[in-house]
Amino acid sequence: MATEPAPISFARGAPSLDIIDVEGLRAAADRAFTNDPAGSFAYGTSVGYKPLRAWIADRHGVSEDQVLVTNGSMQADAFLFETLVSAGDTVVVERPSYDRTLLSLKGRDADLKAVPLDEDGVDVAAFAELLEGGANVSLAHLIPNFQNPAGYSLSGDKRRALVELARTHSFTIFEDDPYVELRFSGQPQPTMLSLSTSGEVVYASSFSKTVCPGIRVGYLVGDAALIATIAKLATGTYISPNMVAQSIVNEFVRGGSFETSIETVKTALAERAQRLCAGLREHVPDAQFVEPEGGYFLWVNLPEGVDGDALHAAAAARGVQIVKGSDFLLDDSKNAIRLAYSGVTPDEIDEGARRLGEAYRSL
Amino acid sequence: MATEPAPISFARGAPSLDIIDVEGLRAAADRAFTNDPAGSFAYGTSVGYKPLRAWIADRHGVSEDQVLVTNGSMQADAFLFETLVSAGDTVVVERPSYDRTLLSLKGRDADLKAVPLDEDGVDVAAFAELLEGGANVSLAHLIPNFQNPAGYSLSGDKRRALVELARTHSFTIFEDDPYVELRFSGQPQPTMLSLSTSGEVVYASSFSKTVCPGIRVGYLVGDAALIATIAKLATGTYISPNMVAQSIVNEFVRGGSFETSIETVKTALAERAQRLCAGLREHVPDAQFVEPEGGYFLWVNLPEGVDGDALHAAAAARGVQIVKGSDFLLDDSKNAIRLAYSGVTPDEIDEGARRLGEAYRSL
Repeated sequence: MATEPAPISFARGAPSLDIIDVEGLRAAADRAFTNDPAGSFAYGTSVGYKPLRAWIADRHGVSEDQVLVTNGSMQADAFLFETLVSAGDTVVVERPSYDRTLLSLKGRDADLKAVPLDEDGVDVAAFAELLEGGANVSLAHLIPNFQNPAGYSLSGDKRRALVELARTHSFTIFEDDPYVELRFSGQPQPTMLSLSTSGEVVYASSFSKTVCPGIRVGYLVGDAALIATIAKLATGTYISPNMVAQSIVNEFVRGGSFETSIETVKTALAERAQRLCAGLREHVPDAQFVEPEGGYFLWVNLPEGVDGDALHAAAAARGVQIVKGSDFLLDDSKNAIRLAYSGVTPDEIDEGARRLGEAYRSL
Repeated sequence: MATEPAPISFARGAPSLDIIDVEGLRAAADRAFTNDPAGSFAYGTSVGYKPLRAWIADRHGVSEDQVLVTNGSMQADAFLFETLVSAGDTVVVERPSYDRTLLSLKGRDADLKAVPLDEDGVDVAAFAELLEGGANVSLAHLIPNFQNPAGYSLSGDKRRALVELARTHSFTIFEDDPYVELRFSGQPQPTMLSLSTSGEVVYASSFSKTVCPGIRVGYLVGDAALIATIAKLATGTYISPNMVAQSIVNEFVRGGSFETSIETVKTALAERAQRLCAGLREHVPDAQFVEPEGGYFLWVNLPEGVDGDALHAAAAARGVQIVKGSDFLLDDSKNAIRLAYSGVTPDEIDEGARRLGEAYRSL
């Protein structure tokens, strides 16, 4: 009997354990339990662990009442959508966009309008045309940095244009920014939150990519009145988020481990992205992609007519997990796939790209 | 200027820090991070941290696919209600019952039917009469042990009768049991979950009262198909609950700290309950109550015509926080209050009872 090939996953957007600072987390937990046992172990309130909330507010240059710290940023999204999105509301999403967000918005019966995502971010001209055509957009969900699934980032000019569009057409921008700290090349851009002057932007981020995913700590920043409304919803849902986890994150970010951890993660991601691009050029020369400047993901366009679903199956038969591009689209396009390089070692990437080439040629 | 009296809170159902095993938690975290860093720090799935799920399944004598571990049991309630309760559904609640549960069910526009709570649990005859009168009950929310707010427990006979009622009238019992481990006198009774044979019972509990509230770990046990449905909802809400917290709880319960912690908590609660009852007998001789056999709460009935809202204000003016009985009722009765003795020291209890007597006499 032939040996099964070792599984290699380009599917999950999650870090490998070797780039998680286990010792930093252990030390942070120890400090948290020593310095603030009452704050760590008692019920908190739904706004989150106050010292961490203060750190986040300071980082974004906002007041503390503009911040809500949640059990991961997906939970933040869920609260935000429950508050802002009713059945029939017109919501703009990027094409492609994160599958869980699309599912969540579809679950609320929102009327989704997909605006194409270019290499420098969402197509602002197409967005403006939609608005001028009379679309009554109430919310736009945008992932500005190293977008999931495309890996693209929004240019500074487009950020300014979008904030201006939101102001003149009275819609809210949901700036969903979990990857912002993971830039390993190119120039960082200001958040739309910081460019906004009239509360048009609600911002979400997370410590999943900079501390670890299992700690489930994310947050929202926005208009104080909106945050207060969501805090009430959070109280009714879970009284308080996880104080133990948030108190550990607070010690982690304040004790110097945060910067070290981000450096470790960025260095690893830069190497992995480079290896994946090189592997694809060698083994899947038809693949078209933009070399990422940060984040976890590479979006691969294949020639028209190539069936991403069939490639998914052929790769799986060779022990390689990928995600079909169609999972991130509202239409039926099939000639794209998403590859995550965050959870695989460089050697796995080389071997995975080789097998992916084999799968591609088998179609 | 007179010194303000030191604040004493009989309001919050939460443990004081002195009965939380801080060192046990620190050691459990250390073991969790050493023994299973991948399981603690990576994304999990929405069913929760698997070793803890297995421990819970074993404790309740059910299979693992009948257990979902959540971010606190309030979140478990929220998922359950979202799955089982639609607008207009008839839901039975105890009178009085936990205010947050009532709010959550009212928020879903359920048609709430309050069945009186006797000293041995919900009035089963009144419940049966309601059913025979044609009420199409779909769910009954019951807190069987040391009920919040009343402190009463459901007798064994009534538990059996309720499971039988649920079977014959095809409704689900939601057995909400966070206080079960906190019995300091009297005889424990079997869970309705264990008495049920046809999936009529969904059971929830929590580690908030036995480990600590800030860790936010609760769980549901029920029919495997229902649990699978709720697991999908949980995935869409937060991908996975807090793995760091659940992995710490897993080490805590498996490493012997759990039994020690429960003993510490029960010993303290027994003394606090006894002191509170003695204090009330001395300072508020009109107070009527049942001496608790466990849990956090004492429900105090005052003579007809006494205004609990006015007593609440008079006590607050003396630095004593209590909760108005009317918060736990769907009607306008006002002559009851809830006193929590979980978060106060015996000396605070003596002084609190003295001030409460003063407040009472001031009415």
